[in-house]
Amino acid sequence: MMTDSPLEPAVLGNARIATLAGAAYGLIEAGAVCVEAGQIRWVGPEVDLPEDWAGVPRTDLGGRLMTPAPIDCHTHVVFGGSRAREFELRLEGASYEEIARAGGGIVSTVGATRAAGEIDLLQAALPRVDALIAEGATTIEVKSGYGLDHETELSMLRVARRIGQERPVRVVTTFLGAHAVPPEDGADADRYIDEVCIPALRAAHEEGLVDAVDGFCEGIAFDTAQIARVFDAARELGLPVKLHAEQLSQMGGTKLAASRGALSADHVEYADAEDAAALAAAGTVAVLLPGAFYTLRETQVPPVQAFRDAGVPMALATDCNPGSSPLTSLLLTLNMGCTLFRMTPEEALRGITVNAARALGLKDAGVVAEGRRADLAVWDVTEPAELAYRIGFNPLYRRYFAGAA
Amino acid sequence: MMTDSPLEPAVLGNARIATLAGAAYGLIEAGAVCVEAGQIRWVGPEVDLPEDWAGVPRTDLGGRLMTPAPIDCHTHVVFGGSRAREFELRLEGASYEEIARAGGGIVSTVGATRAAGEIDLLQAALPRVDALIAEGATTIEVKSGYGLDHETELSMLRVARRIGQERPVRVVTTFLGAHAVPPEDGADADRYIDEVCIPALRAAHEEGLVDAVDGFCEGIAFDTAQIARVFDAARELGLPVKLHAEQLSQMGGTKLAASRGALSADHVEYADAEDAAALAAAGTVAVLLPGAFYTLRETQVPPVQAFRDAGVPMALATDCNPGSSPLTSLLLTLNMGCTLFRMTPEEALRGITVNAARALGLKDAGVVAEGRRADLAVWDVTEPAELAYRIGFNPLYRRYFAGAA
Ligand SMILES: [Zn+2]
Ligand SMILES: [Zn+2]
Repeated sequence: MMTDSPLEPAVLGNARIATLAGAAYGLIEAGAVCVEAGQIRWVGPEVDLPEDWAGVPRTDLGGRLMTPAPIDCHTHVVFGGSRAREFELRLEGASYEEIARAGGGIVSTVGATRAAGEIDLLQAALPRVDALIAEGATTIEVKSGYGLDHETELSMLRVARRIGQERPVRVVTTFLGAHAVPPEDGADADRYIDEVCIPALRAAHEEGLVDAVDGFCEGIAFDTAQIARVFDAARELGLPVKLHAEQLSQMGGTKLAASRGALSADHVEYADAEDAAALAAAGTVAVLLPGAFYTLRETQVPPVQAFRDAGVPMALATDCNPGSSPLTSLLLTLNMGCTLFRMTPEEALRGITVNAARALGLKDAGVVAEGRRADLAVWDVTEPAELAYRIGFNPLYRRYFAGAA
Repeated sequence: MMTDSPLEPAVLGNARIATLAGAAYGLIEAGAVCVEAGQIRWVGPEVDLPEDWAGVPRTDLGGRLMTPAPIDCHTHVVFGGSRAREFELRLEGASYEEIARAGGGIVSTVGATRAAGEIDLLQAALPRVDALIAEGATTIEVKSGYGLDHETELSMLRVARRIGQERPVRVVTTFLGAHAVPPEDGADADRYIDEVCIPALRAAHEEGLVDAVDGFCEGIAFDTAQIARVFDAARELGLPVKLHAEQLSQMGGTKLAASRGALSADHVEYADAEDAAALAAAGTVAVLLPGAFYTLRETQVPPVQAFRDAGVPMALATDCNPGSSPLTSLLLTLNMGCTLFRMTPEEALRGITVNAARALGLKDAGVVAEGRRADLAVWDVTEPAELAYRIGFNPLYRRYFAGAA
C-alpha cells in the first residue's frame, strides 16, 4: 500500500460511502471525504465539495465502497500455547477427562501464558492482529484473563499495549482477571476474587494498563455477587465495566451489567426480553459472538428480534481465543452474524463499526462523519451487502488509520 | 514470493512433511524433498538424502510444515452477476416469491452469465481463483452449468480453460449442463436433457473443453433416468462422470453414480449405509461440501461414520457458487468439515489433498511422494491440526506449483 502522510490535507474522492450515520447504511453516492491531521473534516457528495478543498491533493477511489474501518470490540488475542491438538483429540473421540488429563482446556492456556515471557506473548499475538488489520481493522480490544495471577494479568495487559506500538492499530485494553478460577485456588472463587483479582486490578490500573473491566458470569466461572465486587472496585477506580453474560445459561449477568451502566454485555445467547429492556434502558450494547456459537455448536441463538424490538444496539466481534473461537476474521464474523443469527447485512456492518465503537466507549470512531478519526476502509465492491455475503474472501482495497494509508 | 526455476534440481530441506502417504499424516520429521523438472524425485528424512543430491541448491524451510498443495475438487467459480442483494433481501424478511420477482435465485445467475462476455466471466472468476491460490491451491475443478444453453455452456468451459492460462493453477473442467432446467424450457426437463444438454456436451467435448461430466440429481433438478441419459452420452465420449447427489433428499443418485463407476458423489447428506457400501465397492469418492450445508443452514449431516466404516474416501471442497456457498477458502472448509461434520483434522486434510486428487481422477497429485508433481504448500505452523483448527487465518508461507515458488 502507498503511504500518505496523515497530517497533510487530502481528499478521498469518487467513493460510494456507507457512512453508517443514518438509515440505509447512511449511503452517499459519488462521495468524498476530506481528511486533515488524522481527522475527517468534511464528508458529502463530491459535487458539494467545499471550495477551500478544491486545490487539495485528491485520491480517486474509482467508485469503490468506503466504510468506517472495522473495529473488533471483543478479543483475547494475547495468550500462550496452542489448543490445536486438543481440537484434534476431541474430534478423534477423546473424552473431556482424557483431554483434561492431557493438559487441555483453559488450564493449558493459563499454564502456557504464565510460562511465556512478554516478548513471546507479543510475537504470538502479532500474527493474529495482522490478520485483523489485513481486513482493515484499526481498533482492537484486547483482554487479560489467562494469567489469573497478579503478575501474569499485568503482563498480558503490557503486551496488549505493546501491540498498539508495534502495529498501526489502536488497542483498547480490558482487565479480565475474573475470567476463571485458577487451578491453584481450587474451587475457592471468593478468595480468588478478593485476594488476587481485585488487587491485580488496582495494580494494573496504577500502571495505566486498564481501559475497562470485564468478567465471566457463568456457572463454570463467577456468580453475580462475585462479579459485583469486581465492578465495585472498577467504580472506585473510575473504570467502565462490561460482562461475559448469559452465554451458556441465565445467570442474571445481563441485568447486573445493565444496572451498572456497563458498556456492553457479551455473548447473551440466553438473554430474554426483560434483559433486552434492561440493556436498552441502560444504553448497554449487546456484543454478539457468533464464532464461539459456531465453534461450540450451540443451538441457543441470541434474541436478535428482542434486541431489535427494544432498541438495543448490537455489536459483533471475533471473540478471538484459543478455546472456543480461534477466529481472526471480522468479515467472516459478519457472515456468521447473518447466517447463524439472522442479522441483516446492515445490522452486521453496524456491529463491527458504529456499535463496536460504542461498546468500547469510543466517541471518535465507527462512522464516517466530520470530526471523527479518519479510520476508513475502502473495498473492491460496490454493494455493502457483499461484505457479509462472501465467505473467506477479503476485498479490502485500502485502509486508512488516522488518515494514513 | 521468490520465483525458483521449476526445471533446475532443488532440495527443499528442514521441513516437517505431512506426506499423506500412510497413516498419522504420513509424517516425516526433519524431512527433505528433491524436486526436478516439476516433479518430486525423492522424499524422506534429510539425514538419508541420496548422495547425488548433496551438491544441489537447497532451500531451508526452517522446520515448517509441508503438505501436498490443496486441491479444490468442486467449484462453480465461473458465473456472472452477484447474489449479495438477494442474500440481503432474504435476511430483511423478503419471501422466496418476492425474491423470485426481484429476479433472484439461480435464474438470476443464468441470466447474468448469459449476458456476460467470456472476458467479463474471466475477470469475475479470477479474484475467486486468486483467493484459493493465496491459500496454496494448485488444482481447481471448475464446472459449467449457469449457461443452460448450447453457447453459454461452452463459453463457461472456455473461460475455465483460460483461468489455467492466466494463473499458475491447473484447471480440471466439468460439464454440468444438467444443473437445472432453464427458465425458457418451463418444466420440460426431458426435452432440455435430450435437445440441449447432450448436444452441448458433444460439442464441448469436440472442442476439447470437457474433462468430466456432472449432473444435479434432485427433486428441483433432474431424476435418475434423466441423469442416466447424460451419463450414457459421457460413456460414449469416454468421459468420466460424477454427480450432485442426495443433497436435499434421497433420490438414488449416489447408487446411480456408484453403478457407473463415477469419480465422485457430491454433497451426499442424505446418503445411507447402503449408499456408502455402493460407493466403497465402486471406489467412488464422497465429496463433502460444508460451505453449502452452513449457508443453507441444513441439519442433515452427511453419514461420515458410515463412510468411515465402509472405507469410502472422503474429499472436501468449497462448492464455491453464488447461491448456496459463496466460499473461497479451503482452509475454512477444513474447519467446517471438522466443526460441522465432525471429521478429524487428518480426514479433513486428506479431503483437500489425496482424496480431492482422487475425486478428479488425478494420479499425479495429492501426496508428497516420488514421481508426483511438486505441488506443495509450506505453512507457518508445525502441527497439521493447526490448519483445520484456526478460523479465518492463512498461515501459508510458500506454495510450489510444479516446483515453481
Ligand atoms: Zn470472551
Ligand atoms: Zn456444486
